[in-house]
Amino acid sequence: MQVAKVVGNLWATRKDENLSGTKLLLVVSFNIRSGQEGELPFVAVDSVGAGVGDTVLVVGGSSARGAVKKSGAPVDATIVGIVDEYESE
Amino acid sequence: MQVAKVVGNLWATRKDENLSGTKLLLVVSFNIRSGQEGELPFVAVDSVGAGVGDTVLVVGGSSARGAVKKSGAPVDATIVGIVDEYESE
Amino acid sequence: MQVAKVVGNLWATRKDENLSGTKLLLVVSFNIRSGQEGELPFVAVDSVGAGVGDTVLVVGGSSARGAVKKSGAPVDATIVGIVDEYESE
Amino acid sequence: MQVAKVVGNLWATRKDENLSGTKLLLVVSFNIRSGQEGELPFVAVDSVGAGVGDTVLVVGGSSARGAVKKSGAPVDATIVGIVDEYESE
Amino acid sequence: MQVAKVVGNLWATRKDENLSGTKLLLVVSFNIRSGQEGELPFVAVDSVGAGVGDTVLVVGGSSARGAVKKSGAPVDATIVGIVDEYESE
Repeated sequence: MQVAKVVGNLWATRKDENLSGTKLLLVVSFNIRSGQEGELPFVAVDSVGAGVGDTVLVVGGSSARGAVKKSGAPVDATIVGIVDEYESE
Repeated sequence: MQVAKVVGNLWATRKDENLSGTKLLLVVSFNIRSGQEGELPFVAVDSVGAGVGDTVLVVGGSSARGAVKKSGAPVDATIVGIVDEYESE
Repeated sequence: MQVAKVVGNLWATRKDENLSGTKLLLVVSFNIRSGQEGELPFVAVDSVGAGVGDTVLVVGGSSARGAVKKSGAPVDATIVGIVDEYESE
Repeated sequence: MQVAKVVGNLWATRKDENLSGTKLLLVVSFNIRSGQEGELPFVAVDSVGAGVGDTVLVVGGSSARGAVKKSGAPVDATIVGIVDEYESE
Repeated sequence: MQVAKVVGNLWATRKDENLSGTKLLLVVSFNIRSGQEGELPFVAVDSVGAGVGDTVLVVGGSSARGAVKKSGAPVDATIVGIVDEYESE
């Protein structure tokens, strides 16, 4: 899973019906040790009530689809946790 | 999911029979915050009626296959939404 | 799917039995707008009768396995179309 | 599988219920020949009792989900071994 | 599939039980046209009797898991062929 920062919201009126009712967030990868954000934002579906500014855990691939709890949702990135704390050496 | 820009159309007469009837679009990744387009175009199947110039949401991996609604389609990138608006900090 | 150029053939006598009878082609990613080829060749199974010099459509991931039409083939890249033409803005 | 170094622990109170009870470790990719660590830490679920400082084997993709032995866990990276030794030419 | 060079062996005493009995090899990606090896070694399970110095074909993703012929093996890279020869233009 990657650590990411939520940087915005995104809307798509015309979309796959299996995305209806999902919350789409704009995120960037986040280096939790250096504090540096990635360059290219991507879109993740929220499953834990995350919002802009949160440091989150994003799962990718087919596991992202299962995490949305909506069978057949066309999703490859899902926010599955909000990071509270970490300890690094 | 990645945000991408549709930049063209692409045709392949000789192709896997499960691609028949799909619309193939040439897209590039798109940095929705900076407005910068990616270098290397790739091909996505359209599932929402997108066209050249649209800013779209592209899903990859096995979820792309499901999004085409054609069982067994050999697809790893599908356009599943047209981006209307976003808000970023 | 990525656009690629077929640059060679490749043979492996000792191989997984589920690869027997497949045609292995050496390909490089191809920027269809600039005409530039990628650096690192990779190997794709041909499913459409492609040959050296052709511009092709390559599907990756688990969809590549399905496209080979040989149950259980250990494949992560399959050529599923030959590109005839494209229009880009 | 990639070779990685465990560099920290990470906690998420609010998370997908299928992550409850998993141990989340912060890891970086590790070049076992040069001794160089990667830049961007990511998060892997531990399945073998690894701890900070260990050189580990990390599996990604859908295989990571199976390795957690918790059906439906939204996971795309799992530590599946602790590296004891290697021999390289 | 990528072309790789086997550069070493790797041992992990503590590991997922479904990795028991597998042979873990250290490999680097290999540019078969230029002869240049990649920087970062990774680990692949051998399924064809490969050894150090061999030029091999490595399959990734969920297809790597099937190629190991051990149900549920937590594997994302498997050696599925030994490259004998290639012809490139």
